[in-house]
Amino acid sequence: MIKTIDLNSDLGESFGQWCMGNDEAILEIVSSANVACGFHAGDPVGILRTLKFAQKNNVVIGAHVSYPDLVGFGRRKMDIAAHELTADVIYQIAALQGLAKVVDTRVSYVKPHGALYNTIAHDEYQAIAVIEGILAIDPNLTLVGLAGSSILRLAQERGLKTIAEAFADRAYTSKGELVSRRETGSVLHDADLVARRMLQLVTEGGVESIDGKFTSIQADSICVHGDNPDAVEMAKQVKTVLQQAGVTIRSFVHP
Amino acid sequence: MIKTIDLNSDLGESFGQWCMGNDEAILEIVSSANVACGFHAGDPVGILRTLKFAQKNNVVIGAHVSYPDLVGFGRRKMDIAAHELTADVIYQIAALQGLAKVVDTRVSYVKPHGALYNTIAHDEYQAIAVIEGILAIDPNLTLVGLAGSSILRLAQERGLKTIAEAFADRAYTSKGELVSRRETGSVLHDADLVARRMLQLVTEGGVESIDGKFTSIQADSICVHGDNPDAVEMAKQVKTVLQQAGVTIRSFVHP
Amino acid sequence: MIKTIDLNSDLGESFGQWCMGNDEAILEIVSSANVACGFHAGDPVGILRTLKFAQKNNVVIGAHVSYPDLVGFGRRKMDIAAHELTADVIYQIAALQGLAKVVDTRVSYVKPHGALYNTIAHDEYQAIAVIEGILAIDPNLTLVGLAGSSILRLAQERGLKTIAEAFADRAYTSKGELVSRRETGSVLHDADLVARRMLQLVTEGGVESIDGKFTSIQADSICVHGDNPDAVEMAKQVKTVLQQAGVTIRSFVHP
Amino acid sequence: MIKTIDLNSDLGESFGQWCMGNDEAILEIVSSANVACGFHAGDPVGILRTLKFAQKNNVVIGAHVSYPDLVGFGRRKMDIAAHELTADVIYQIAALQGLAKVVDTRVSYVKPHGALYNTIAHDEYQAIAVIEGILAIDPNLTLVGLAGSSILRLAQERGLKTIAEAFADRAYTSKGELVSRRETGSVLHDADLVARRMLQLVTEGGVESIDGKFTSIQADSICVHGDNPDAVEMAKQVKTVLQQAGVTIRSFVHP
Repeated sequence: MIKTIDLNSDLGESFGQWCMGNDEAILEIVSSANVACGFHAGDPVGILRTLKFAQKNNVVIGAHVSYPDLVGFGRRKMDIAAHELTADVIYQIAALQGLAKVVDTRVSYVKPHGALYNTIAHDEYQAIAVIEGILAIDPNLTLVGLAGSSILRLAQERGLKTIAEAFADRAYTSKGELVSRRETGSVLHDADLVARRMLQLVTEGGVESIDGKFTSIQADSICVHGDNPDAVEMAKQVKTVLQQAGVTIRSFVHP
Repeated sequence: MIKTIDLNSDLGESFGQWCMGNDEAILEIVSSANVACGFHAGDPVGILRTLKFAQKNNVVIGAHVSYPDLVGFGRRKMDIAAHELTADVIYQIAALQGLAKVVDTRVSYVKPHGALYNTIAHDEYQAIAVIEGILAIDPNLTLVGLAGSSILRLAQERGLKTIAEAFADRAYTSKGELVSRRETGSVLHDADLVARRMLQLVTEGGVESIDGKFTSIQADSICVHGDNPDAVEMAKQVKTVLQQAGVTIRSFVHP
Repeated sequence: MIKTIDLNSDLGESFGQWCMGNDEAILEIVSSANVACGFHAGDPVGILRTLKFAQKNNVVIGAHVSYPDLVGFGRRKMDIAAHELTADVIYQIAALQGLAKVVDTRVSYVKPHGALYNTIAHDEYQAIAVIEGILAIDPNLTLVGLAGSSILRLAQERGLKTIAEAFADRAYTSKGELVSRRETGSVLHDADLVARRMLQLVTEGGVESIDGKFTSIQADSICVHGDNPDAVEMAKQVKTVLQQAGVTIRSFVHP
Repeated sequence: MIKTIDLNSDLGESFGQWCMGNDEAILEIVSSANVACGFHAGDPVGILRTLKFAQKNNVVIGAHVSYPDLVGFGRRKMDIAAHELTADVIYQIAALQGLAKVVDTRVSYVKPHGALYNTIAHDEYQAIAVIEGILAIDPNLTLVGLAGSSILRLAQERGLKTIAEAFADRAYTSKGELVSRRETGSVLHDADLVARRMLQLVTEGGVESIDGKFTSIQADSICVHGDNPDAVEMAKQVKTVLQQAGVTIRSFVHP
């Protein structure tokens, strides 16, 4: 029985005068921080601030790399050439590595963001471009990808360690896939329900699907959100329920 | 008598589909390449291409950090807060370090670009912000600054190595300062004259000022340009005349 | 005795996924909306949304033009050439004019934003560049500037109508200048005090300065903020106190 | 028999210090100028310069609207939501309208650029979003689209005038579609051949396809390029051959 799980969250997503998320609050909850690198969010001052909080809380740092699309927040798929995507991934990881070094921490993994995350879960061309970028700058970095998606195997075949990720507040189909955000019931809002589901995920290796069947999900990390007060409360609830059941919350990546 | 000098040039300044400069040609001439980091110019793909040429030619790499101003090409002074400037400098150096590592080379020095270069030659507030950024990410990096300017002393006081720079195609006042570009005669176009002046700089420690007096300039590096065919020819001429007089062209920074 | 005053506020300052300000709430209070044009804030979708609310509330629209500096939110002075600034002003006004037309309203005035606003209050070079831009695209636009600043005269000499502006939550020196934000007491937080001061401004033509003297301020418009709940409450309080004293709140610009 | 044709070209594609194309030369050749609006290329200063040349040469102006992607030059398809694309189109057209007005000319048509052009030739969702944007800001604007593509019909059904466009230097399949740039022989480099083909297009209503059959293409405008000296020569050759055969070169849009 799995008794350890990682909690991760997307952070460092403010930009200049625009604030997003309560990074201080969420960094007291999670074990891993996916930190924006400037392409969908994150300016150098704000990234440094988030990295400092993460370092202070011994939270493991990941590079939350994205398509270059500030106004779209990296949520719009782009038909980007492989060599461009590879170079963009290197640039972003590198920038975050330097900022992390300055506050006495380091980048341990890479989690692609938004539309890039969704695209590489099934698009082999862009998936390999991302993997090549990670391998080029540091083959010891771990890749975080969607549980059950083909990118995990593609990365492993090329020598990368991988972490499979589940989403706390999302419904799953009976095939173990995420229910599209466009469908009713795709996003869960009840913190108690979400916490119970995540305990089931950790202890039973799966959750109940949207059509009422148990669906197996092999996940090493659970993504929680911190962009509004309710999200922070849900993240706290997930952590509390897991810990009360004896589950250890920690990163699978050595920081 | 000084018998060694560095030749540097601003490179990697293309952006997406827009080309600037003949990096391949100039990288066969210079010993140091100031490579754009994405804030005034340079996209990840283009920067990688330039770094590969530099590596192949054993040219030492510097981070050409800038204000964040693509449309203004970093040529407009910005009243940026110290902590913003420091973070911007760290981000840019870090991004270039990662790209350099991927092509088996490394960043050895930092040369601020354009309006930032001119501002920190006299503005202590921004100068210290830049120095703090360099110290934070790597105190072994060397800072390249305007020969005779106060930033060199400020950097040395804080423990940074420095390189003083002269400009091949620029006229100097009798005080050893650059003649403003707004004045007639500030920019020299005769490659033979420029080459002779740079030989004088290396062998006599100064050049003839715009009003006809010998003016002392202590420089370790000479900046040449490569943004048009005439500039490349002038750079070649400078190198040829120096080498024929027995001067060694090499970086003062250990790569 | 002046019995009419305009209330204006900076709006449309969200950007993509980043929200700023409560435009809906503030548009029920003010008579004029300074709407961001995309250079310091504002994406086309968000600008359209704000313009729709403004149109619905019969609020007069102004173009809140800025230096091109998203990450700095237009708050950093830039040494921009006159022809660049003029072209940037035209571009921004034009973009807003088109968006306004689509929701059946129009741009009636121009209020420069942030560092540009502060710079042109005293810098004649940039002031004239802004004025030239306005004159080029539509000489019937009104320019809003700092009460007591020289740009108002410069604009009038060139044929522009002008509106002098006071700031509700700011302290003034005995010379009628804004106390710098760096000084203690420069920003006022007491909504009742602010409302009483604005009534004094309208009825007596001035306010008490930071050193306790009455200082004359000739203002046609008062700037209030809406970027947080307290600010919205303060704006409401100012309006209520003014209206209870018989002051009419309306734009001096014909929409 | 058609004896009149429009020649159009993509212009105003410089950005800040980066030059692209010889707008002065090409504006002496073409009858229509597709002018960049700042999203894939074009800064306000450069756009104004191109518009001035166009106005001087009585060339009709079109808005060359794009996805927001400077570093990718608008050549990468983006999965952008309809309301975002519509607002982006309005913003760009409006900005260009204002700049055009300042130099005593006006925007008469809209030609989407790059990946947006290719996408809307077959993607109804994005096509309608573009059409909605044009209708919203000015239903009298004409839409230029790929000859034979479904967007022309979609636009006409919604009340827009349309212009069908052929590409001078591109090979066509026997179905009248463009041969993909990835295929050998897709781009033609022989100016004489290209000029003869365009004469055939105008006089016979089609060209020889890549597999040697006559293929019908109903086009009102021919796109020529100006981004290198060879392209300018080819454009001149096309115009000369057409004019010598008695074809009138002029825009179908009333300026």
